[in-house]
Amino acid sequence: MTPFLQFILFLSLLLTLAKLGGYISTRLGQPVVLGELLVGLALGPSLINIFHISIFENIVLEEIISDLAQIGVLLLMFVAGLELHFTELVRNMKVSALAGIFGVLTPLGLGYLIGLAFGFEPVPAFYLGLTLGATSVSISAQTLMELKMLRSRVGLGLLGAAVFDDIFVILLLSSFLAFTGSQGEIATIAWVFARMVIFLGISLLFGIWALPWLARRVSRLPISQGVVTLALVVMLLYSFAGELVGGMAAITGAFLAGLMFARSPEKERLERGINAVSYGFFVPIFFAHIGLSVNLRGLDSGIVWLFLGISAVAILGKLIGAGLGARLAQFSWRESAQLGVGMISRGEVGLILASVGMSERLISEAKFSAIVGMIVVSTLVTPPLLRSLFSVEKSKLEAEDGNLLEEEIS
Amino acid sequence: MTPFLQFILFLSLLLTLAKLGGYISTRLGQPVVLGELLVGLALGPSLINIFHISIFENIVLEEIISDLAQIGVLLLMFVAGLELHFTELVRNMKVSALAGIFGVLTPLGLGYLIGLAFGFEPVPAFYLGLTLGATSVSISAQTLMELKMLRSRVGLGLLGAAVFDDIFVILLLSSFLAFTGSQGEIATIAWVFARMVIFLGISLLFGIWALPWLARRVSRLPISQGVVTLALVVMLLYSFAGELVGGMAAITGAFLAGLMFARSPEKERLERGINAVSYGFFVPIFFAHIGLSVNLRGLDSGIVWLFLGISAVAILGKLIGAGLGARLAQFSWRESAQLGVGMISRGEVGLILASVGMSERLISEAKFSAIVGMIVVSTLVTPPLLRSLFSVEKSKLEAEDGNLLEEEIS
Repeated sequence: MTPFLQFILFLSLLLTLAKLGGYISTRLGQPVVLGELLVGLALGPSLINIFHISIFENIVLEEIISDLAQIGVLLLMFVAGLELHFTELVRNMKVSALAGIFGVLTPLGLGYLIGLAFGFEPVPAFYLGLTLGATSVSISAQTLMELKMLRSRVGLGLLGAAVFDDIFVILLLSSFLAFTGSQGEIATIAWVFARMVIFLGISLLFGIWALPWLARRVSRLPISQGVVTLALVVMLLYSFAGELVGGMAAITGAFLAGLMFARSPEKERLERGINAVSYGFFVPIFFAHIGLSVNLRGLDSGIVWLFLGISAVAILGKLIGAGLGARLAQFSWRESAQLGVGMISRGEVGLILASVGMSERLISEAKFSAIVGMIVVSTLVTPPLLRSLFSVEKSKLEAEDGNLLEEEIS
Repeated sequence: MTPFLQFILFLSLLLTLAKLGGYISTRLGQPVVLGELLVGLALGPSLINIFHISIFENIVLEEIISDLAQIGVLLLMFVAGLELHFTELVRNMKVSALAGIFGVLTPLGLGYLIGLAFGFEPVPAFYLGLTLGATSVSISAQTLMELKMLRSRVGLGLLGAAVFDDIFVILLLSSFLAFTGSQGEIATIAWVFARMVIFLGISLLFGIWALPWLARRVSRLPISQGVVTLALVVMLLYSFAGELVGGMAAITGAFLAGLMFARSPEKERLERGINAVSYGFFVPIFFAHIGLSVNLRGLDSGIVWLFLGISAVAILGKLIGAGLGARLAQFSWRESAQLGVGMISRGEVGLILASVGMSERLISEAKFSAIVGMIVVSTLVTPPLLRSLFSVEKSKLEAEDGNLLEEEIS
């Protein structure tokens, strides 16, 4: 069988099972994304190890699926941006800043303490705390979209907080590396900060001034699906520049690109096409791939307690930290809990930090598996928790005043 | 720069330039596809050699782009199938069979003669003829879609002829390999034939009986873009089975899958989503990739005459053979010429045959470059020739009776 045939057989299988998992998940009252995650986990090295079944023995298959999955998460964040308004997000700046910053500091502090409790030296303990700080909001964004709650106060606060979270963690990481001496002096921190400002400045200026004009031009040209291609190209370039110029996560760039397109008059037409590209192909690959890429077999008995400890800290730290931040910004207790839960899920930034920590010898390989386990747990608990916190509220409000909430939001 | 960043930068560049090339092409009165092909040729090893520019030095980048391009050509044939009706195609069976079979035999005979003229032994000369026989109708299908002529008599005859062409070439190849002794006895030919019948039988039965029901079921489930994913999965599986079970070209499988979906009531909704996926992302990658994957620098002076000779034979052989076949089925001279021109473009089947020939030592490496050059020439001349043959007719008819033709077709 040629590599291409292996590739398309694998794709067919993955897409079918992911969608099937998502469907079964909704039948059980859970969000689609939970089922898609679990399908990936079942197919991955923790259980079936599908990449190493003989019909898929293809040297580049893993790489290709991983690249498609990464385009999937970029599209997911782009679509989340597309559903919001830039001005709405700016209006929620205060809660975003408070929830974002407290949502990093609390798990960082708790992680430091649990590190010391498990006998880490202070520097590695601080680094462990740092890996617990970085949220990855794609799972929550997807769950809120399913619940049609993305444009609620909580949804807007959450997405904004995720941007602050990303900026703050990167600044802390570069400060840490500067102070522990492995990467230059204090000047590097200023440089890290300057790069962020440059990226955010240029991408906002381009998005606000040039993009609406460009989108209108392209939509009038006789190019089939020109606006869809334009959106994909801009999304890819923002992600690229976000990581390479801004030093931030690629998904932050994709989210910004979506926000910018949300202001264009071609948004409606674009949305249909982008949804087909995203949910018809790339996004299910992304969710399934999360499970495909982790190996829970690495969690041997020696580190089970560490794994359980940091998982508890990861969940409670975000819930308390981001929740308190939201409460300080006059959110209700329920809304604060919703926002806190939405920040629980971790993802690629946590993984990247852990890998850097491993290469700097701050984290051993066994401890690395514990961190991976924590990321999986935080990812799996978020959708059902979020859904249950919202569904109580929704049914209560609906009983009170009919469909008002629905209309206001959608 | 990480491999993923290289990948998305490359993608952005490729998509932008392909769409730009397509746009410039339309401004010059040429089909979009010509511009996209030329952009690929300019970026490829013949000129800029973009894969070997330092920022794209990524070991799997070529493989990934090639896989995405192959999904692109499958989508293109799927969309072509989606625009047709199975019954229309069956009604045009006679012209399809005649044009398909004569369209293989004529270039095969002429190729054999030119091979002898260039001093080939009879067996390699026959094999050279065989590589000239296999059409690749994706370029013509795209051009006809742009001209809104796919569902004309010529379009239907052309697509049907391409299916016959594929079947007939595969049968000839397996007969050739059986008789020249490198692959078993006569029984293998029967087996090749039986595999085709099995694949066509099962895929038609499944497509006619099970697929409409399945599509209706999936469209009612609460799965976002479920029908788009279903279509992609079915397309991939038909392509897979077409090649692995049927021994035919994967694009024939994809075309069949499109034909089957054309009968489903979900077709309209599906079409919009699939068009976004195809023309917004995969198809421009396919067209640009054709140019990316050929190296015209291999065409040194020693084989220029062979290259020119087989290019002329490739063009005239299809034009005369398929054209005469159409004429025998009572097409007008103009229609016959249009169908003949539509069959000129060659593609992956020709390349595969040439590679097999090289590994069987029937074709030297230098002669292989001549065949690659022939494929490029046949691909590049088809869109403008087809357009000019149709535009004369279109303007004449429009002058005669207004928009009647347009309405009848679209």
